[in-house]
Amino acid sequence: MSTSVADQFTVVAATGGATAPKGFAAAGLHCGIKAKAGALDLGILAADTAVPAAGIFTTNLAQAAPVTVSKRHLETNQGLVRAIVVNSGCANACTGTVGMSDAGQMAAETAAQLGCQPNQVLVASTGVIGVNLKMDKLVPGIRAAASALDRDNGGILARAIMTTDPFPKEHAVTVKTARGTFTVGGTAKGSGMIEPNMATMLGFLATDAKVSSALLQRALRESAAGTFNAITVDGDGSTNDCVFALASGASGVEIDDELYPALLAGFYEVSRELAVGIVRGGEGATKLITIAVKDARTAADAMRVAKTIANSPLVKTAVHGADPNWGRIVAAAGRSGVMFDVDRATVRVGGILLFENGLPHDDNAPKAAEHLKQKDVSIDVDLGTGGGGDATVWTCDLTAEYVKINGEYRT
Amino acid sequence: MSTSVADQFTVVAATGGATAPKGFAAAGLHCGIKAKAGALDLGILAADTAVPAAGIFTTNLAQAAPVTVSKRHLETNQGLVRAIVVNSGCANACTGTVGMSDAGQMAAETAAQLGCQPNQVLVASTGVIGVNLKMDKLVPGIRAAASALDRDNGGILARAIMTTDPFPKEHAVTVKTARGTFTVGGTAKGSGMIEPNMATMLGFLATDAKVSSALLQRALRESAAGTFNAITVDGDGSTNDCVFALASGASGVEIDDELYPALLAGFYEVSRELAVGIVRGGEGATKLITIAVKDARTAADAMRVAKTIANSPLVKTAVHGADPNWGRIVAAAGRSGVMFDVDRATVRVGGILLFENGLPHDDNAPKAAEHLKQKDVSIDVDLGTGGGGDATVWTCDLTAEYVKINGEYRT
Repeated sequence: MSTSVADQFTVVAATGGATAPKGFAAAGLHCGIKAKAGALDLGILAADTAVPAAGIFTTNLAQAAPVTVSKRHLETNQGLVRAIVVNSGCANACTGTVGMSDAGQMAAETAAQLGCQPNQVLVASTGVIGVNLKMDKLVPGIRAAASALDRDNGGILARAIMTTDPFPKEHAVTVKTARGTFTVGGTAKGSGMIEPNMATMLGFLATDAKVSSALLQRALRESAAGTFNAITVDGDGSTNDCVFALASGASGVEIDDELYPALLAGFYEVSRELAVGIVRGGEGATKLITIAVKDARTAADAMRVAKTIANSPLVKTAVHGADPNWGRIVAAAGRSGVMFDVDRATVRVGGILLFENGLPHDDNAPKAAEHLKQKDVSIDVDLGTGGGGDATVWTCDLTAEYVKINGEYRT
Repeated sequence: MSTSVADQFTVVAATGGATAPKGFAAAGLHCGIKAKAGALDLGILAADTAVPAAGIFTTNLAQAAPVTVSKRHLETNQGLVRAIVVNSGCANACTGTVGMSDAGQMAAETAAQLGCQPNQVLVASTGVIGVNLKMDKLVPGIRAAASALDRDNGGILARAIMTTDPFPKEHAVTVKTARGTFTVGGTAKGSGMIEPNMATMLGFLATDAKVSSALLQRALRESAAGTFNAITVDGDGSTNDCVFALASGASGVEIDDELYPALLAGFYEVSRELAVGIVRGGEGATKLITIAVKDARTAADAMRVAKTIANSPLVKTAVHGADPNWGRIVAAAGRSGVMFDVDRATVRVGGILLFENGLPHDDNAPKAAEHLKQKDVSIDVDLGTGGGGDATVWTCDLTAEYVKINGEYRT
């Protein structure tokens, strides 16, 4: 009997964020994109040298200039990236040819400061859309940030990418393997609303494992599927969403097919923590809702059911009101477009059985209502198809505060 | 050059609702399903004799007993129906075998009173789910209602099917053709919340045109596609949704292929008015939003884009706040899964151009904001694909009141 791969490594939480792995430095400062004095609005995450990199991007057809530019750079730089430059306060989206030129200039200026090729810099922006970047503020800002790069600045970077996120988000883990220990760290920003426009999700992961850009891309894509792509605040995807990963190799631990599960586990753990942090900081959110769907015909079916429940305003408002409304959960699953037999499905809230064999367990409702008064709540749906497809999604409740943030901020 | 069919008939608004066409009678009363004394909770719409009928039903996998029973009846009654019996206050959904038996008994009792076969009665319920019908109240109620049937009671029926709808909804039109005049009338209930559960949409149409059940089914399906199926309050579909149509033939105007467009126009006009009424009465709604998407590759694509915009919480809250946020509209269209070129799309709010050639027209924003302060507002998106696919969807704004109704009614 062979030892399972899972036995060969352990994942342990560590302090810090994107600069917790060796071989990275960061900077964050106020350059003047945000009007408020001192509000951090520019950051750089840099590797000590050009390193393997990966990226995933919004699937929205409306893509901001920095998304287009970063995609092009990853296509032409042989997967080697020296730095990520990011600004908050302006999304540089729906800005036409000027916006493309500005995003290119952000990369070029960063490259000039760090001594690399422009296409070895990835660009990200978040904030107001339909407004041009203030390049007269940004260029001197990039110069100042490049000269302030320091391994201790991970926390400043986490704050520099915030818009109206209620708190900064960073996380790191060490992964101990038979061939040595490596670190994965990262930072993210979530669904904060900036002035008159839309939310953006940005995530930056770093590791000191030695990984090819191809394997790094696979780890990023596979970990994001169950983390960054398994959260939803309101179902609205942005023009600017992107997650980047850089691998410095500074730990000396080389990731091959055998060690890949260890890398994936580290990526998954950091990404999950950041993704859940985005939901906790969702607009107007008061509760984190973990929705686990089990035994769909396929994992994709399970994800579709989980997301339909997660995006149901009726479910989200019921949870907000601590109402164990299994009927809304069943109805959301039923309209998801996924086939299952309602009479074989079960619904649990906080582990408490509320629906089985097509009938409610109303006697359990008071206990489930108590559970929903907590800040972390769970909904479990078993579809009973025999297919074994599972998925977990995280979302938040829908509150009057969400409506106020998104509809009434001009009044 | 031939005269177009459109020239051969005119559609004129008439008074009344489901009993405006000849050959129908209705009743409505309080039998005791709703606790509040005098609250109407039971209704019957009856034809003078068994007549051609049609029905469309929720696509939700979780279907209430009355939906299952009514489907079976339409499959076995050769398309001939004498009456619709409907209760409000209890959805008879997720009630297992008892619920099926109760729904069957509703039909059987109505049939016994009217002297027809049980499968010539259609059944509809709306209200709390997971609760059994009080048959001891309902059976005497059905007897009383059957003996109170009267052509003047259309308005009472409209009130008897309400849950928390803010107003009753009924409409009628006369259609004048070269071969005579016929009438189409109807009533509907919308997205009102009843005690601890979900919204249901019910619609009942009647006409005194002479139509086969097959052609009636076609008219119902085709008119619903652009009306009842083109509205959304929150994207949540119910276990109980259904729309029925009955055709008495009492006008003597026989609908063949040539006159079909006249029937369809009458159905469309009544259905549109009722559907828009449902949206106006949507939970917490303060504005009716008409979203027209033009020049998608196909009409189905246009509908998908329009519904994604209509269900976007960010769009709905922006409209509530009178914020002409074209960015949220573009982003919703962009994530709809429909292919188009963002740089060829235009966005107008209240007819005012806000987005074109990938760039905003910010100078027009104040005029658009003024438009959004009205109660009836419009969003027009032209995707510029050259495909010519158009669709219109109606929705309402998302307000703090919606959250309160759906999340805080137990407090």
